[in-house]
Amino acid sequence: MSKKIRLGIIGLGAEGGMYAEFLNEGRVDNMEIGAISDILPEKKEAADGYGVPFYADYKEMITSGDVDAVVTTVPHYLHPEMGIFALENNVHALVEKPVGVYTKQANELIKLAETKPELQFGVFFNQRTNQLYKDLKEIMDSGELGNLRHTSWIITTWWRPQGYYTQSDWRATWGGEGGGVLVNQAPHQLDLWQWICGTPERVFARAEFGFKRDIAVEDEVNALVSFPNGATGTFITCTHDMIGTDRLEILCDKGKIVVDDSKKVTISRFVENEETLSTNMGMDVVKQLFTGQLDMNQYVSVETRDYESVWGEQHCEVMRNFAAAVNGEEELLAPGSDGIHGVQLANGIHLSAWTGKEVDLVDFDEATYLDELNKRIRDEGKFEERN
Amino acid sequence: MSKKIRLGIIGLGAEGGMYAEFLNEGRVDNMEIGAISDILPEKKEAADGYGVPFYADYKEMITSGDVDAVVTTVPHYLHPEMGIFALENNVHALVEKPVGVYTKQANELIKLAETKPELQFGVFFNQRTNQLYKDLKEIMDSGELGNLRHTSWIITTWWRPQGYYTQSDWRATWGGEGGGVLVNQAPHQLDLWQWICGTPERVFARAEFGFKRDIAVEDEVNALVSFPNGATGTFITCTHDMIGTDRLEILCDKGKIVVDDSKKVTISRFVENEETLSTNMGMDVVKQLFTGQLDMNQYVSVETRDYESVWGEQHCEVMRNFAAAVNGEEELLAPGSDGIHGVQLANGIHLSAWTGKEVDLVDFDEATYLDELNKRIRDEGKFEERN
Repeated sequence: MSKKIRLGIIGLGAEGGMYAEFLNEGRVDNMEIGAISDILPEKKEAADGYGVPFYADYKEMITSGDVDAVVTTVPHYLHPEMGIFALENNVHALVEKPVGVYTKQANELIKLAETKPELQFGVFFNQRTNQLYKDLKEIMDSGELGNLRHTSWIITTWWRPQGYYTQSDWRATWGGEGGGVLVNQAPHQLDLWQWICGTPERVFARAEFGFKRDIAVEDEVNALVSFPNGATGTFITCTHDMIGTDRLEILCDKGKIVVDDSKKVTISRFVENEETLSTNMGMDVVKQLFTGQLDMNQYVSVETRDYESVWGEQHCEVMRNFAAAVNGEEELLAPGSDGIHGVQLANGIHLSAWTGKEVDLVDFDEATYLDELNKRIRDEGKFEERN
Repeated sequence: MSKKIRLGIIGLGAEGGMYAEFLNEGRVDNMEIGAISDILPEKKEAADGYGVPFYADYKEMITSGDVDAVVTTVPHYLHPEMGIFALENNVHALVEKPVGVYTKQANELIKLAETKPELQFGVFFNQRTNQLYKDLKEIMDSGELGNLRHTSWIITTWWRPQGYYTQSDWRATWGGEGGGVLVNQAPHQLDLWQWICGTPERVFARAEFGFKRDIAVEDEVNALVSFPNGATGTFITCTHDMIGTDRLEILCDKGKIVVDDSKKVTISRFVENEETLSTNMGMDVVKQLFTGQLDMNQYVSVETRDYESVWGEQHCEVMRNFAAAVNGEEELLAPGSDGIHGVQLANGIHLSAWTGKEVDLVDFDEATYLDELNKRIRDEGKFEERN
């Protein structure tokens, strides 16, 4: 049996507390709680309950020898510096999403990790363990559907009432959280979308800041992206749609995928590349089309799949996979370096919304992004500027 | 019984021929074929078959006294000049969609029509007669759902194989047709969308020209629009999706409408304005939300409606309504002046896609649009420039 990896949990809030429970219940067979760190001294009681050491200072926990790896369930801005400190001290780092708030910060962590290939550096994209998205990734990577033409994701199931935002001072601020739905809720889809469809080259976006919530950051986003080879996509998200939509469409040369509610997948496969089919169709087909007599079934076969996921399974699977990677048994499902795509697209959407201009994502201007972010942090007057 | 209006059909192609059949079959009780005009002399035979006069020159037909009104089933560029000639000669004009290819041209017709209030000037938006969309218009106009927040329409059911494009020289050219899916297929939805949701102020768009078809014009479009008061929307259309999607979403302060396949409508009504609900929810609700125990049914009631439409009924209803308006019995369901919105949004999308910049629709730069259009007509080298 593999070595049981001792995880240090930095921040025993809602998320960290949930992971602690999963580990304590034995839901991850190759991982256990090594120690817990939190700035709130009263969290020691929980650590005592689990029978593990407690540290007020996460750095002390990392250098204590009590942990093989850490997870950073803390406000987003802190993920990179904690990840860096762990790796510098030869402790594996499982960083919460997003891997950073802005690309400059995220890249510092990623660059450091490249110099430490002996250490595992992962990002907590639990939705990558969802079988549905794993299957989509496999289908797209296999090439059976050909090149991407268009994709859209309407993901407005992130409804949050005002009380959610007012529960802590840093939430939904520029200085404390660094963004709204793009930084907190939608990073999952920003990751999955690019994991499955590829990385776009440009983005134009409109975002509304404090549109239907009393917050500084965005609660509504429309983004229009361009992939290489003329493929395009739209991404729509918000936190004020009480009965949100979750609908992903992916149109390719040889097929189309539609996903409803992250549960139902409809895969249509064309008998040939659609362009070839189109080119070879005669006027008789055009006539049939216009008289309603064209039977599309001759060109398309349709498969539907239904998926169910059990609450908590995804998070346990991320931890299991991470521990297995530490033990040299598996590849990481979500390497930390992949986290840059979501951060960059979120930053690009902000920057486009702020400037009213399309933003280059290949040669992304991270300095201007940070300037614009700091401008907002300054105006807010509650947190220090970032560098 | 009302007077039977004598319709002159200009252009006895696929569309004009269909209207002639409907009228000949007596499907429109207050309208009959008055005369037929076509530049192809062989169409006289059909006119003889219907027992109506035939004119090679549409102007002669208009001044002949044989017709009370005309319909312009001809290439789009010709709609405005034919509409103008009809109105100038005191003949009512039912103009095919789009009411013009570019706003300058469309506005000339609309301006003239304003000086002739005694004449009916309509645009052939048959989908406005669809009970589903009439009902949505009524719901939105009634104010029961409050202000618009967001709307998206994915309307990619306009699949056309290459043979469709190669059947005539003018089709899918800048000089002959003036655009692709935006000018030919999607004008229906460009109209319905704005009829129901209002007129946007700005648009950013990406369009692909000759993306998956051997044509000069656009076969794929992504548009991101801004309405007044921060509401936004996306509009996606193309002609290369063999199993296209038709999905319209409208999110408002007090409810949400989702339409699938122009057939199934789901209307969710919130018990109060969502923002008020959100503001008044306590931390207990937030906790319920995060533990999966929040029952959204207490805030929302859902109604579903199914609609069926019979082929041809919409077109007959446009003609019946137009004849009734000529007889002073009804208001036009689609006044010609409404046609400007669809033309302007289509032009705005083109201009944004050409320039890579967001386009102002309130103070639309129609001169630049026409310059850019003429540049493409010039490069094409097959048709005369427009003015």
